[in-house]
Amino acid sequence: MTMLRRFLPILSWGAEYSRQTFVNDLVVAVIVTVMLIPQSLAYALLAGLPVQVGLFASMAPLVLYALFGTSRTLAVGPVAVASLMTAAAVAPLAAQGTPEYLGACIALAMLSGLMLVGMGLLRLGFLANFLSHPVVSGFIMASGLQIAAGQLGPVLGIRVEGETFVEIVGPLVRDLGQTNVSTAAIGVGSLVFLFWSRGSQKPLLLRVGHGERPPGTVAKLGPAVALVVATLAVWGLGLADRSVAIVGKVPSGLPRLTLPPFDGALWVSLLAPALLISVIGYVESISVALTLAAKRRQRVDADQELIALGASNIGAAVSGGFPVTGGLARSVVNFEAGAETPAAGVFTAVGIALVTLFLTPLLFFLPKATLAATIVVAVLSLVDLRALGRTWAYAKADGAAMAVTILVTLIEGVEPGLIAGVGLSIFLHLYKTSRPHVAVVGQIPGTMTFRNVTRHAVETDPEILSLRIDASLYFPNARFVEDLVNAAVAENPAVRHVILECPAVNTIDYSALESLEAINSRLKDGGITLHLSEVKGPVMDRLKRSHLLKELTGKVHLTHYDAVASINPDLARRTRDAKRSDAPAT
Amino acid sequence: MTMLRRFLPILSWGAEYSRQTFVNDLVVAVIVTVMLIPQSLAYALLAGLPVQVGLFASMAPLVLYALFGTSRTLAVGPVAVASLMTAAAVAPLAAQGTPEYLGACIALAMLSGLMLVGMGLLRLGFLANFLSHPVVSGFIMASGLQIAAGQLGPVLGIRVEGETFVEIVGPLVRDLGQTNVSTAAIGVGSLVFLFWSRGSQKPLLLRVGHGERPPGTVAKLGPAVALVVATLAVWGLGLADRSVAIVGKVPSGLPRLTLPPFDGALWVSLLAPALLISVIGYVESISVALTLAAKRRQRVDADQELIALGASNIGAAVSGGFPVTGGLARSVVNFEAGAETPAAGVFTAVGIALVTLFLTPLLFFLPKATLAATIVVAVLSLVDLRALGRTWAYAKADGAAMAVTILVTLIEGVEPGLIAGVGLSIFLHLYKTSRPHVAVVGQIPGTMTFRNVTRHAVETDPEILSLRIDASLYFPNARFVEDLVNAAVAENPAVRHVILECPAVNTIDYSALESLEAINSRLKDGGITLHLSEVKGPVMDRLKRSHLLKELTGKVHLTHYDAVASINPDLARRTRDAKRSDAPAT
Repeated sequence: MTMLRRFLPILSWGAEYSRQTFVNDLVVAVIVTVMLIPQSLAYALLAGLPVQVGLFASMAPLVLYALFGTSRTLAVGPVAVASLMTAAAVAPLAAQGTPEYLGACIALAMLSGLMLVGMGLLRLGFLANFLSHPVVSGFIMASGLQIAAGQLGPVLGIRVEGETFVEIVGPLVRDLGQTNVSTAAIGVGSLVFLFWSRGSQKPLLLRVGHGERPPGTVAKLGPAVALVVATLAVWGLGLADRSVAIVGKVPSGLPRLTLPPFDGALWVSLLAPALLISVIGYVESISVALTLAAKRRQRVDADQELIALGASNIGAAVSGGFPVTGGLARSVVNFEAGAETPAAGVFTAVGIALVTLFLTPLLFFLPKATLAATIVVAVLSLVDLRALGRTWAYAKADGAAMAVTILVTLIEGVEPGLIAGVGLSIFLHLYKTSRPHVAVVGQIPGTMTFRNVTRHAVETDPEILSLRIDASLYFPNARFVEDLVNAAVAENPAVRHVILECPAVNTIDYSALESLEAINSRLKDGGITLHLSEVKGPVMDRLKRSHLLKELTGKVHLTHYDAVASINPDLARRTRDAKRSDAPAT
Repeated sequence: MTMLRRFLPILSWGAEYSRQTFVNDLVVAVIVTVMLIPQSLAYALLAGLPVQVGLFASMAPLVLYALFGTSRTLAVGPVAVASLMTAAAVAPLAAQGTPEYLGACIALAMLSGLMLVGMGLLRLGFLANFLSHPVVSGFIMASGLQIAAGQLGPVLGIRVEGETFVEIVGPLVRDLGQTNVSTAAIGVGSLVFLFWSRGSQKPLLLRVGHGERPPGTVAKLGPAVALVVATLAVWGLGLADRSVAIVGKVPSGLPRLTLPPFDGALWVSLLAPALLISVIGYVESISVALTLAAKRRQRVDADQELIALGASNIGAAVSGGFPVTGGLARSVVNFEAGAETPAAGVFTAVGIALVTLFLTPLLFFLPKATLAATIVVAVLSLVDLRALGRTWAYAKADGAAMAVTILVTLIEGVEPGLIAGVGLSIFLHLYKTSRPHVAVVGQIPGTMTFRNVTRHAVETDPEILSLRIDASLYFPNARFVEDLVNAAVAENPAVRHVILECPAVNTIDYSALESLEAINSRLKDGGITLHLSEVKGPVMDRLKRSHLLKELTGKVHLTHYDAVASINPDLARRTRDAKRSDAPAT
């Protein structure tokens, strides 16, 4: 039962479900449904798909997440960045509007779902950690800029080609003269209205994490209002005849069960993009889930979230949709409207189903320019270029990883950008750990304390070299320490004893063990003994399994003072004297 | 001048060069020359090249290393593993015996040389650290097995096809019946003699690092003796007519200046193998150089060694050779024979030049089986499978990296083996750092000391959660710690204060900073304050550049005791009381 509860969190909250919660979740569902309609339509267009696919992808995933998810308020569905990544992954494989294009999107969702479930079962959630915050925020910023640039074409009625930000912006500026006035009136009008309706609100990302309730849920309905007004305007003024692109006939009815095409070559070529979409989607989703859960002191299980997100994507695939994830905007609306359980998500799915069944004829005159405008406004809230400055000021390595992610994404596109960012941040991390801090230490006179010789007035014995190692010892830095000890001994010909002080050494791996053995045997050749001090318990346990302790020319001492005192009894005597003469004063 | 001395170490030792050193180095050169002849010939055959190319590759590199190298005793030339890697890299590009094959080998040496010089100038020597000891020794072992298996064909007079160990062994066993009796007599005879002449010596690798002088330099001359005896036997008994493969006519004369072919596609396809050969060659070379230098308390400059090894490879390329590196066997002979300066290497080069000028006719009847036997004996000293058990017993992660390197090398070949080993060891390292140790700590009664609640009898305050973080905080573990704090707070509803004790936190990167900010703001939403204690100086400096300290709901305390006492004055009073009542006793 406990096992079952772990994999089916619905068993926990479902048992306590009351009539009051039911009414509450129902009200929430109405609000969220209205807000999700424009989002779902717009992100389907962004992914290069017919608008109804966006509605399909907003039903099954919500229901499956309600079954498997551990967050009570996360709302799963199409989101901006995943939609862009879907378009980027599928564009080289099939032409938009063809059944092959839709088939590839479905395969991508299925593959991403299977990967997420697999990662969840194998407890591989930690893989997402290798996307550092600067890389993720740089990537999302650059994707936001690329999406916004791409949507300016539809807003102005200009045809835009090109995939990356750089490829889009040049032609867009060049073709500004070809703006379609009627389309631009609708598009720019929608943009202005949407920005106004957000009012002086801070960007969503900045607000998340603050306790106060934002100015009002009504502002979130701006897109729905814009949709209605724009549709009425196009219908009333007959703008569809003036080359204003409209959604047109949307087939009504619920999604039918679909299976992705069984095409080995297609699946293989989707492997890498599916992995990237899965990981980025998971990082976005888990961040939102953790933030919202913490506000009510609820728990989110990181591995179970992988399974839930995977199930949602499999659900999206078999209902003819495309990759989905837990979205920031929709989850915040859900949370702020007061959703108490994932049942609110199920009711929202029912709401969207009702729309697909009965209201699609109303979408006929909906101008695409307005949908594009809702995307522009939504993604620009993700762009906060000052974060780059803040990151750089805090740590140059992090700033560099972020800048490279942004630049490569803008120039080369989403996948190369993400790969470059992750690769660079791992490389910089390994580089830093390969050159650890090592201090020569000496005794603070009259105490048993040893400190860095370059920072404190300390006493040293010319025959004793005391080195404090401020890092774990493993292969990236093993040879560095080996060389450092060699160099220090070569520079100090009087040295007869080397003591390595190891209070901050949390691990010694086999490479470092061999380096220590090499240091020991080289020092032995030069007639110098090697001692260790302040070795941590678990490290000592492991060293006992090796030959080092047998071959060590010196000893392992509990404290660094013990080590020095065992070599130089004079020093020990002097310290005792100093302490004794101090004694009356204390 | 200092700069010049750094890049041309010859200026340091050349200034002190005396007549006595000269005579000494000359004697050493004679011994080493005799030992190098069979090695150079054999490794050329191993690389799939005519024997004289091995002699060519043993001249210019020695001279260039003498100019640029910082080790006084390292001997640079063809070595077993690099020769095998050369054959593996060039085989797919050209057929053995063609000018294109030789051209590709020359291009490989040139590319490797340019990479090494470039890495030296950019001080990228640390890159070699990412080859952990278990991966390198696993790789060298598997290469040794592969080389030995490949050479058993020539030893027995069986034609062997196949590249990897697995590909070689099957056909070899199958074709054992086709053994050529005369060849096998020479080959197996040479093998037995060579094993015998090594006597009861331990494998070379084990002996390096011990101070005693090994049984005798004479044993090292075994291969030269075998060569002479076998050549005489083939000549005297007319075995060349009985299908015993002989070296045949070797063109005499010094190498002429050659340039690698300027073929862009060729260079591009050699990039990856050149990088692997460079890094493996450098690791082998620097290990030998460090070991020998330490015995005489001399210094080796890791970055300058890159430049010297690069220059040697460029020298090998322009004199018609193939990739070279500092070899273990040749350097040990040089060291043990008493070489005092790199001038010994220059004289050795002259010795080899004299051989190429005047003695190549003597090589006509030299049986290839004997050369193959010298290789088998040399590489088997590299194979020590018990190391796998030792490594596994010490640390499973290291054992796994080693086992995977060995298996993939044996099955898939040298390049995939090396890449798999490096990839796995970096992955395992990142995996380990992504799940750091975090302990809940409590106060040892009556003291100011805090220890792990699961290991010590300690007192805790139900309103205070004290967590000691035993690792630096950076992106691989930032989210882990975030989740851990969330979970701990969700499990302890009474908690009003969280204190993170940070004595072992050497870094907090931007991702970890954002995680701390998220932890702070989430705890704030739940009405819980967050405190930090024992934050290291450099970490504190960096935190001051962020917003965390302003937004922190609690404070940063010098010691963990201060933190607890500031929250719970009762505890502080009790501790003082306990100390006071203890006082008379101390």
